[in-house]
Amino acid sequence: MAFLHVLILVILSLNRYKNNKAMAEGSSGSEFTLDSIRKSLIRQEDTIVFCLMERAKFPMNSALYNQSLDLVPGFSGPLVDFIVQETEAVQAKAGRYVNPEENPFFPDNLPPSLVPNYNYSQVLHTGGASININKAIWDMYLNQLLPLFVVAGDDGNYASTAASDLSCLQALSRRIHYGKFVAEIKFRDAPHDYEPPIRAKDADELMKLLTDERVEKMVKKRVEKKAIVFGQDVSGSNNADSKHYKVDPSVVARLYDEWVIPLTKRVEVEYLIRRLN
Amino acid sequence: MAFLHVLILVILSLNRYKNNKAMAEGSSGSEFTLDSIRKSLIRQEDTIVFCLMERAKFPMNSALYNQSLDLVPGFSGPLVDFIVQETEAVQAKAGRYVNPEENPFFPDNLPPSLVPNYNYSQVLHTGGASININKAIWDMYLNQLLPLFVVAGDDGNYASTAASDLSCLQALSRRIHYGKFVAEIKFRDAPHDYEPPIRAKDADELMKLLTDERVEKMVKKRVEKKAIVFGQDVSGSNNADSKHYKVDPSVVARLYDEWVIPLTKRVEVEYLIRRLN
Repeated sequence: MAFLHVLILVILSLNRYKNNKAMAEGSSGSEFTLDSIRKSLIRQEDTIVFCLMERAKFPMNSALYNQSLDLVPGFSGPLVDFIVQETEAVQAKAGRYVNPEENPFFPDNLPPSLVPNYNYSQVLHTGGASININKAIWDMYLNQLLPLFVVAGDDGNYASTAASDLSCLQALSRRIHYGKFVAEIKFRDAPHDYEPPIRAKDADELMKLLTDERVEKMVKKRVEKKAIVFGQDVSGSNNADSKHYKVDPSVVARLYDEWVIPLTKRVEVEYLIRRLN
Repeated sequence: MAFLHVLILVILSLNRYKNNKAMAEGSSGSEFTLDSIRKSLIRQEDTIVFCLMERAKFPMNSALYNQSLDLVPGFSGPLVDFIVQETEAVQAKAGRYVNPEENPFFPDNLPPSLVPNYNYSQVLHTGGASININKAIWDMYLNQLLPLFVVAGDDGNYASTAASDLSCLQALSRRIHYGKFVAEIKFRDAPHDYEPPIRAKDADELMKLLTDERVEKMVKKRVEKKAIVFGQDVSGSNNADSKHYKVDPSVVARLYDEWVIPLTKRVEVEYLIRRLN
């Protein structure tokens, strides 16, 4: 039985090695380019909008987040912490956090992956690969964002609501930590621009280099439009009712303006500061 | 500490009782009407389309579903079974399956809910409330639907893929088992029409009574349109690229035509057959 298990792992690893090699060769040594990253970021916008709209189906259900309600016997903390921690543990066993694009919200005491490691291409510099600002994302999401797009009330669906919260949190975390890949590719494209401020640990100068207001404006406009298009009530007839949206489009624009873009740049700067270590 | 816990539960329960009473009174004794059910079914269509589009981001990742790969030491079965079972266990502890609208895929050995029970309005007849056709939904989803909208390949994201599968499965299961509520309300609206075939255990006649081809055609047209609207690439400019969809809209229409509508009617018939027990 143990021999069979080892055999399976070997076959699977060989298979993955083959797949990965083909993939890597197909994109000349790396699947990360500025263009592939841009495409991924744009598709991730859709995911974020979908997740928020799904969370908006439930009212606030504030008992989930109550610090002083110890609802789960033997667990100290809000119910949402319990559900997210336990779900992350399941996903960790299935290898989620082996992928350098994924970052857990509760990294302490996560169980190890039980499945054979996939050979993810390692494009990140080791210094910055472990940056994890999920605490800031968690606080922003629960305390600032949620009240902007969720109605008051309690419908008892705590498990479904927390699962929906976790989807939102994971989508936002993935998007914001993608800043590591953006920073790496930008650095490789213009090392001479970035090296002086990195050596000087000049975060302001790095922030200036990374900021493109024209692009940021375009992104905010695009996510607002996505909230309009994806948030409409689609009827079977030709005229969709476009007056009611699942999530206020201006909230999605604000989410990007106040949090997603600044937090991504924070990740980029933190990454670059360590890039020459 | 134990006393405090009990006190919290009592306060929470009283609060919920108040909320629930207000809700029930606001909708004259029950929040389930044909109109409220219709609205919920329409909103659930959006959820199903969103879930499929999110699953389509990953390739097939067939190692997840392989019956003969025992990837998790000590667990016999495909990796997807492990992830779904473990995730359902977390959600069961948080009370998911206390809601009569939710049905687990692995009902055996589910842990009990650890949170105080929400006082869901009990509209279903006890005979049919426990109907669970998730085995059929699971088989349909994994063996027939998935290959229709997911590309071949293995990208190693098994945990994320399985989480996405679970979202699809839960959305489909909820939609199909909503047939219990549809059947109950239809029965209450016209008991004289339904009682004779129920007493005669005439499933064909019940199926005939429940079938409205005009409405079914409209639903299929509407979900196809949703896949077109929600599946488009939305750019920041005015002309969206409408040629490429995240999931082929005809697959969504087919999903409803071949599986969602027939399985819902199966639930409705099974429910009605037991309605007078």
